[in-house]
Amino acid sequence: MKFEFYNPTRLIFAAGALARLGEVTREQGKRALLVTGGGSVKKNGVFDRAVASLNAAGISFVECAGVEPNPRITSVVRGAERARAEGCDVVIALGGGSTMDAAKVMAAAVFYDGDPWDMIYHGQPAPHVPVRSLPIITVPTLAATGSEMNDGAVITNAKTIVKSFVSAECLYPRVALVDPELTLSVPKQQTAFGVCDLITHVTEGYFNGVDGTPLQDRFAEGTVITAMEWGPRAVANGADLEARAQVQWASVVALNGWVQVGVNAAFPVHMIEHVLSAHHDVAHGAGLAVVNPAWMRFAARDRPARFAQFAERIWGVPATFGNEAARAREGIDRFESFLRGLGCPTRLAELGIGESQLQRYAEDALHVAHDRQGRLPGRPSLSKDEIVEVLRAAL
Amino acid sequence: MKFEFYNPTRLIFAAGALARLGEVTREQGKRALLVTGGGSVKKNGVFDRAVASLNAAGISFVECAGVEPNPRITSVVRGAERARAEGCDVVIALGGGSTMDAAKVMAAAVFYDGDPWDMIYHGQPAPHVPVRSLPIITVPTLAATGSEMNDGAVITNAKTIVKSFVSAECLYPRVALVDPELTLSVPKQQTAFGVCDLITHVTEGYFNGVDGTPLQDRFAEGTVITAMEWGPRAVANGADLEARAQVQWASVVALNGWVQVGVNAAFPVHMIEHVLSAHHDVAHGAGLAVVNPAWMRFAARDRPARFAQFAERIWGVPATFGNEAARAREGIDRFESFLRGLGCPTRLAELGIGESQLQRYAEDALHVAHDRQGRLPGRPSLSKDEIVEVLRAAL
Repeated sequence: MKFEFYNPTRLIFAAGALARLGEVTREQGKRALLVTGGGSVKKNGVFDRAVASLNAAGISFVECAGVEPNPRITSVVRGAERARAEGCDVVIALGGGSTMDAAKVMAAAVFYDGDPWDMIYHGQPAPHVPVRSLPIITVPTLAATGSEMNDGAVITNAKTIVKSFVSAECLYPRVALVDPELTLSVPKQQTAFGVCDLITHVTEGYFNGVDGTPLQDRFAEGTVITAMEWGPRAVANGADLEARAQVQWASVVALNGWVQVGVNAAFPVHMIEHVLSAHHDVAHGAGLAVVNPAWMRFAARDRPARFAQFAERIWGVPATFGNEAARAREGIDRFESFLRGLGCPTRLAELGIGESQLQRYAEDALHVAHDRQGRLPGRPSLSKDEIVEVLRAAL
Repeated sequence: MKFEFYNPTRLIFAAGALARLGEVTREQGKRALLVTGGGSVKKNGVFDRAVASLNAAGISFVECAGVEPNPRITSVVRGAERARAEGCDVVIALGGGSTMDAAKVMAAAVFYDGDPWDMIYHGQPAPHVPVRSLPIITVPTLAATGSEMNDGAVITNAKTIVKSFVSAECLYPRVALVDPELTLSVPKQQTAFGVCDLITHVTEGYFNGVDGTPLQDRFAEGTVITAMEWGPRAVANGADLEARAQVQWASVVALNGWVQVGVNAAFPVHMIEHVLSAHHDVAHGAGLAVVNPAWMRFAARDRPARFAQFAERIWGVPATFGNEAARAREGIDRFESFLRGLGCPTRLAELGIGESQLQRYAEDALHVAHDRQGRLPGRPSLSKDEIVEVLRAAL
């Protein structure tokens, strides 16, 4: 094991924490760019409560509304221009993963005169890795991406149909204000997609990481088990605050670096899914639910022992069940059934995606990320044909 | 669940990381107070390698050697005076938990004109909670206390025979440079005590925390299981770098806040042990090995279900083994046997402690920490007589 870990975000986790937004913001700045998404926070009263808290603390703000799902670089440009023009000194993201990701990149783009797309990794080191940003405060309204407490963001370039990421220390939010009450009104389907998203963050590290990380294995397994215990409750009864809190806490942990520390994993399932959502604007969590089991079945051929461990520790599949390969398959089958039971799609057809462009998707995935041999990084790394094979199995 | 979490320490974990000390220090200051313990780092060459790295980076330093086990407030005063007199702008702790704890408080004492003992909690809010310190760099040579990546320190006042703690955000080290190679020469006994120490950090949170933290439960169980898998290997073969690394990583996690986040637990076993080591200067880990199983048996009477969960998830004691109380006892018995097998004492007599002063120890524990009813906080809280009962069971 050899690694570095650094995460300076202050996490405030509590039902009702939204009321502290003003107080928390005052420690970072005086004039906020308040970034929101498609408008659900306006309908359910969350926006008004946030504004009341800011007003009470004497914080002025300008709004950047309308960040779309799979947020576009054009939205980043719009927000950064507004923050500059209005003299904002702090950025608040009030929304889901898309809103938070766009807001984080806006906060860095304020200090970059070039095209903000330069900051996004796409096939080579990004032309500009940001080193400075306005202070960022995240207030997630969805339990899914974990963006509230990490240094990453995923942005889409609709013109070139590329969806990719940036990660840089200056993108760590100063404060993550996590209030599970804000997720009570999330519809069943989005709740399910969020659970799938958080679990996939964990499985990527678990299956693609280096060997010899037994403690991280336990952390990963614990997070998946907890999400599987509480996720179905949150889907079944959206008003169950306890279930909402447990799922949201799991979603924070799933990608704040604790579970993946030192595993040094590529995220091949994410890289493949990003192509699907870039082309078809599907929900990220839904795309992951389709790609992940198909990828697992492919990867398990090379490393059945690892997948048998998953089957045993997550699903209790005993050694007596069969050989390693059989146990590995059983664990994946049960995982896929779990996703289906939660209400996630597990077939490309359910996303409206057919087989006509599989080659293109594979090429695009490799365009964004490839190793020296031109393969998609992961365990195993994948050639273009192998990516097609994974996708074909998910048709 | 309702909590805040903040830990801005940058963790660098790698065999050979010591060589980076100079480079890491240069980012924090130019003139270091280099704090060491009883001299083992001089004998085994670690000190010379640290100095070579500092020299190569152009860092000057003055030494504060001889920090004793159960470090004294007098050592803190000595180090802070030296840092002030010599114009140090960064503090490096090169040693075990005692050295790190003393160094952390020295770094804060530099900015406090009063008696540094004012910073240590003893029975009431401390007269002075530090808010500023010199930048701190920790380089642990022992896997045990977790002090390298948290905001706490434990200091002893030999005059008043009080051992207690301080925790304050300014005590978070800027960098924890964790190099498992530095632990290769730790003797068997100290290695075993370190394993007991780290496990006890986890069990304190696990058994004394609030209800409804299922993810933290999994993290705690995973850490204990990992320490139990790798601890005996590190004790059996001190040269096993892989075992040393796994144990050290578990020791970092056991008290950097990840495992206990939001559980809001008192640490009654620590509070009782601190009295023993204040009076008898015993090794902290050895004292914990004696007190913890005795405390567990007492606490399990009130809450057998929790201890039955420990028995099941850590030791695989099945539901068919017996009723909850029987399973709880079995888990504790196995834990005690584990400690004994590791080479830890489990009886006060092995520490040279008899029954003559049990009342005094209980009074002293309550002097340092008590709730409004005058009881030692924990689950359950303990009266003086109950503390005596726990200690008597460990005679």
